[in-house]
Amino acid sequence: MTTHNLQDTIALLRRTPVVLDALLRDLPEIWSHRTEGDCTWTAFDVVGHLIHAERTDWVPRARWILEHGDSRPFPPFDRAGHVREVEGKSLPDLLDDFARTRAISLNQLGALNLQPAHFFRRGHHPALGSVTLSQLLATWPAHDLTHLHQISRIMAHQYRETVGPWSRFLGVMQCAGHGA
Amino acid sequence: MTTHNLQDTIALLRRTPVVLDALLRDLPEIWSHRTEGDCTWTAFDVVGHLIHAERTDWVPRARWILEHGDSRPFPPFDRAGHVREVEGKSLPDLLDDFARTRAISLNQLGALNLQPAHFFRRGHHPALGSVTLSQLLATWPAHDLTHLHQISRIMAHQYRETVGPWSRFLGVMQCAGHGA
Repeated sequence: MTTHNLQDTIALLRRTPVVLDALLRDLPEIWSHRTEGDCTWTAFDVVGHLIHAERTDWVPRARWILEHGDSRPFPPFDRAGHVREVEGKSLPDLLDDFARTRAISLNQLGALNLQPAHFFRRGHHPALGSVTLSQLLATWPAHDLTHLHQISRIMAHQYRETVGPWSRFLGVMQCAGHGA
Repeated sequence: MTTHNLQDTIALLRRTPVVLDALLRDLPEIWSHRTEGDCTWTAFDVVGHLIHAERTDWVPRARWILEHGDSRPFPPFDRAGHVREVEGKSLPDLLDDFARTRAISLNQLGALNLQPAHFFRRGHHPALGSVTLSQLLATWPAHDLTHLHQISRIMAHQYRETVGPWSRFLGVMQCAGHGA
C-alpha cells in the first residue's frame, strides 16, 4: 500500500484558500457566476462545495475511522450540501468561510496527533468499501485539485466562442468534465 | 462573431501570476517538480512555457496584426521554447520572471490604446488560418486557464496511487490531458 507524507498533504491544503482567493475575489461575474450549461456548477458553487466538504468530510471521517474503524460505514456525503452553504452569501463571504473552515480543520488535524501506525487504520466507505486513513487524508488535497481543475475549466468555457479557432489548441476546452 | 470585453480579459490576466505564486512557491518538490510520465511537463516547466508565451505570443502577435494584418502569417510558436527559459532557474526565479513579464505585457497592451474597431482586424495564423485580434486577446487568458488546468492535473497525478479507491471519484484523475 502506498502511504504518503502528511507534511506534503498539509503544505498543499494550506494553500488552496489563498489560491482561490487570488483567483476569484472581485473577479468579473462572467468568470465566477456562470456555469458550463444546465445542471453544472459555477466557480461560486464549487467554493460552497469545498466548504461543505470541509465541515462534513475530511476531519469528521478521520475521527470516524479512529473511533469506529470499519465497523460502521461513514455517513454518506451530500453532494448537494453546497446549496445551503451558498444561500444568501456573496463570493467574498464564501472565500472567507473557506479560509476559516480550512484553518479550523488543519488545527483539528494537528490535535489528532497522528502517528505512522494510524495511517493503516481502516474505515468503511459507503460506496468504495474498505479504505485507509492514509487514503482519506491523501484524497483531501487531491479533492482540492480536482476542483481547481474544474474551476479553470468552467472559467475557460465562458470564452469557448470568443477564442474562435484557437479552441482546438486549448486542452481545457477539450475536457469533458469527468463528473467534477 | 463573438467579441469580448477587454476588461474581463485583463482582470484575469492580472491574477494568474499571483495565483501561481500562491499555489507553487516553496511547495514540496513532489508537487512542483514531477511529471505525469515520459515526455510530459512538470508544474515548473509549465511556468517556463507561460513566460516564453508572454515574450513571443500575445503582445508580439497583437502588434503583428496591427502592422501586417493577414498579409503575412505570424512567426510560429516554439512549444519547446520553455527549455531555454527554465535553464539554471529555480521555481521562485520563474515565478518572479512570470510576474515581471506579465506586468510588462499588460503595460504594452495598454499602450496599444486599442479601440473597438481594432478587434475585428485579421491576422493569419500559420496553422489556424484567419483569426481576429479579438480572438487572439481572448485566447491569452484562456491559455492561462488551460495551464492552470494542466498544473492541477499534474499535481493530482502525484497522488494517483496514494488516494487508493478514491481515484475514481476524482474527476481530475480521469482527465486524459488533451495535449496540455
